[in-house]
Amino acid sequence: MATSRFAVIAGAGAGTGAALARRFAQKYPVFLLARSSASYDTTVEEIKSTGGQAYGVPADISSAQGVKMAFEEIEQKVGKDASCAVALFNASARPAWKPFLDLTEEDFDASYAISGKGAFHFSQATIPLLLRAAKQDQSEHPPTLIFTGATAALRGSANLAAFAPAKFAGRALAQSLAREFGPQGVHVAHVIVDGIIDLPGSKELLKDAGPNAKLDPNAIADSYWYLHSQPPSAFTQELDLRPHSEKW
Amino acid sequence: MATSRFAVIAGAGAGTGAALARRFAQKYPVFLLARSSASYDTTVEEIKSTGGQAYGVPADISSAQGVKMAFEEIEQKVGKDASCAVALFNASARPAWKPFLDLTEEDFDASYAISGKGAFHFSQATIPLLLRAAKQDQSEHPPTLIFTGATAALRGSANLAAFAPAKFAGRALAQSLAREFGPQGVHVAHVIVDGIIDLPGSKELLKDAGPNAKLDPNAIADSYWYLHSQPPSAFTQELDLRPHSEKW
Amino acid sequence: MATSRFAVIAGAGAGTGAALARRFAQKYPVFLLARSSASYDTTVEEIKSTGGQAYGVPADISSAQGVKMAFEEIEQKVGKDASCAVALFNASARPAWKPFLDLTEEDFDASYAISGKGAFHFSQATIPLLLRAAKQDQSEHPPTLIFTGATAALRGSANLAAFAPAKFAGRALAQSLAREFGPQGVHVAHVIVDGIIDLPGSKELLKDAGPNAKLDPNAIADSYWYLHSQPPSAFTQELDLRPHSEKW
Amino acid sequence: MATSRFAVIAGAGAGTGAALARRFAQKYPVFLLARSSASYDTTVEEIKSTGGQAYGVPADISSAQGVKMAFEEIEQKVGKDASCAVALFNASARPAWKPFLDLTEEDFDASYAISGKGAFHFSQATIPLLLRAAKQDQSEHPPTLIFTGATAALRGSANLAAFAPAKFAGRALAQSLAREFGPQGVHVAHVIVDGIIDLPGSKELLKDAGPNAKLDPNAIADSYWYLHSQPPSAFTQELDLRPHSEKW
Repeated sequence: MATSRFAVIAGAGAGTGAALARRFAQKYPVFLLARSSASYDTTVEEIKSTGGQAYGVPADISSAQGVKMAFEEIEQKVGKDASCAVALFNASARPAWKPFLDLTEEDFDASYAISGKGAFHFSQATIPLLLRAAKQDQSEHPPTLIFTGATAALRGSANLAAFAPAKFAGRALAQSLAREFGPQGVHVAHVIVDGIIDLPGSKELLKDAGPNAKLDPNAIADSYWYLHSQPPSAFTQELDLRPHSEKW
Repeated sequence: MATSRFAVIAGAGAGTGAALARRFAQKYPVFLLARSSASYDTTVEEIKSTGGQAYGVPADISSAQGVKMAFEEIEQKVGKDASCAVALFNASARPAWKPFLDLTEEDFDASYAISGKGAFHFSQATIPLLLRAAKQDQSEHPPTLIFTGATAALRGSANLAAFAPAKFAGRALAQSLAREFGPQGVHVAHVIVDGIIDLPGSKELLKDAGPNAKLDPNAIADSYWYLHSQPPSAFTQELDLRPHSEKW
Repeated sequence: MATSRFAVIAGAGAGTGAALARRFAQKYPVFLLARSSASYDTTVEEIKSTGGQAYGVPADISSAQGVKMAFEEIEQKVGKDASCAVALFNASARPAWKPFLDLTEEDFDASYAISGKGAFHFSQATIPLLLRAAKQDQSEHPPTLIFTGATAALRGSANLAAFAPAKFAGRALAQSLAREFGPQGVHVAHVIVDGIIDLPGSKELLKDAGPNAKLDPNAIADSYWYLHSQPPSAFTQELDLRPHSEKW
Repeated sequence: MATSRFAVIAGAGAGTGAALARRFAQKYPVFLLARSSASYDTTVEEIKSTGGQAYGVPADISSAQGVKMAFEEIEQKVGKDASCAVALFNASARPAWKPFLDLTEEDFDASYAISGKGAFHFSQATIPLLLRAAKQDQSEHPPTLIFTGATAALRGSANLAAFAPAKFAGRALAQSLAREFGPQGVHVAHVIVDGIIDLPGSKELLKDAGPNAKLDPNAIADSYWYLHSQPPSAFTQELDLRPHSEKW
């Protein structure tokens, strides 16, 4: 592979993940991480067919070993000296909407395994590669680590007592890393995605709410790209994204 | 044991935990949970010697099994029909102040095991007993579940990337439970303790900062008691506590 | 007047203001400020009839001159050397619930005149008297300045574009003063009152919501008193108060 | 003037204001409002010399009459049916850094006159023109109203008790308008500018802090442009901008 900088996306399934992959593949070779190759195969093919470079890497992001193996596979492709331009942590467990007393320890762990532990492992794997980029050619966009958050990263809710703690944890991690690695030239940001994402699976939701009542995944991806393009003199640490008609 | 309502404190070691135990023992039999009996033995004796009822229960709060065993021990003392007046989650891992790339998975897990999972297990064990109290005599103070938070529950910091996510998680849990169980009569609150606590171990800190530059554990305990005493028409969900001279 | 410390309440009308006056009159002579004496006459009589000291002072809190005249009148009663134990800023304009384009400049000014300018004038008048108390006998409760906030101090809302800015401003003032005067021994706090207050005028609201669905003014007053009673080692800067069944 | 959409900037002086004007003049005729023409003359000339359309309008933004006159002057240029593509409220009083008891009523009013009242008047003048744009050709960027905020919009500080309330008020206004006019297709956003802006007047500040320790006004302008370019399916209501090395 000729290029020295790559992008990596955890949670690169359908929807936002695929849109992020397509967007960042316009400039970088993109590695798509997901538990199952079914999540990313179509996107990888689509990117390749339009002239981009994309690689699927099956990975259990919640385990140190799983993340280690994935990045070894990436290293084999990009070489030992490659650096990371963009790392996007877009993985998330599915919220367990349940009364608190019905939640099992497994429910609680499942959210945390991704948004807490997974985010931690992914950050530990990518930050050294982002720091490497920060020490190189300053004419490039600053290396960027972005976490996908949710409304549940800002407020707890009844019946959301497993999901909200994990999303809060991810936001705290993003803030901590921004404060530590910003001065070293790595841009760390957190995006609050607040609303329903417009996907085949959400077709029936908000049907009568008029146009633009759901978040277009490509618009989300454009905002991530914008964050990546910000120069070090004016980094955004957090922004929200929601449909214009969303109540909040 | 004659009384039908008890208080239980996780993290009932020296400092705030001991002060909470003494304060709530003025009205309720108090169960002190800590990993090691060395943490609570002195406090238990002190309470007994002044006419209160106190019981130490060794417990690994981070494990479902550990919490289960502790509450079985409590049930043996209070009987199957006793209800819980007050449950205080005051346990916390020691913050691992380390550059992010020096953090181990164990560091990250250690914070979460207490402030995340421990808080979850403790809440699942106590909420049924708090709900039982809520259905009884309304002349008593509303049953109350309070979590001890920290500045790190509000903002991430460089070198605090293991601790902050766990404390954020605890705050999210408190908010979620307040929204779910407030309408059922259980008062769930979260206290941001922001500052150095005045303990033998913190004697050398802020020595020249004048009086009241550190948090008196008894003053903290008074605020927890005050929260417990609030009627259902005016519950506080969150308050901060800091020395008058603290910068923040 | 024999006592050297007094309490003063701006916005001492019916409801919360009256409850605050009754509560603080249990320890201090209380001055009740309101635009019209009709707002406080009953409360003043009630306090006197139960052995307390209460004085009504008509005041236009939104004008520097109005506040100056009111505090001259207070000084005539308490003497030149008296100090202030408690200053409560409970005044508020009535929210103008209107579409933004229907708001007049007068609407916008009316909110700000109280929650912004009024709070500023009241603080400038009381802080010197609170600082005087802070330099005296440390066995007393720390002198305390409390602002009554609202949900609109935390978030803007459609149709609330005149009221929310003014309430935000009051919260900013409280934070600024807490940071400046806490180190000098004055306790400055801000209370988010979130919900409907249980008053004759709100009888028809939430009629079917069960008991305790509205805020009892006396419970609010108890929380203000509790803030006043906190020692300098553990001040609360902000707390929220809402009925247990409130959605938020 | 041939075009039907224009941009208007209040606070179009040197620094951020000028950068905003240059940036938006790449697409729209831009009206620059400032109290004195000295603030914008150079920028207007610069834009014209590079082929853009720019017009200076002297305006006292703090008065209803001043804003009215300015928009009448704009209407004479753009015609009665023109609509507004972008309205930027970038005006701000200079912070009065003073101990609270040294603040005069004039200090307090001066902050509010701009960030409170000025923002109100500007919004009332521009929203009808933005709504007009929202009803037209949907292929254009959604009409956008952006407020420049500051750290003082998020937290009060000692010695900043006049400035912070005004900046909080501006943030509340932005939130209220976003919730009211987002559903009608107008994008309302608030930008927290946190750090020192790199200007001739700030040359001596942070001299030894390395490159990019101050905010580049052009980078700020790019972020405002980005906000304007967001489609209605994914609006950002608030973002922060700070130099990568800023402590916060």
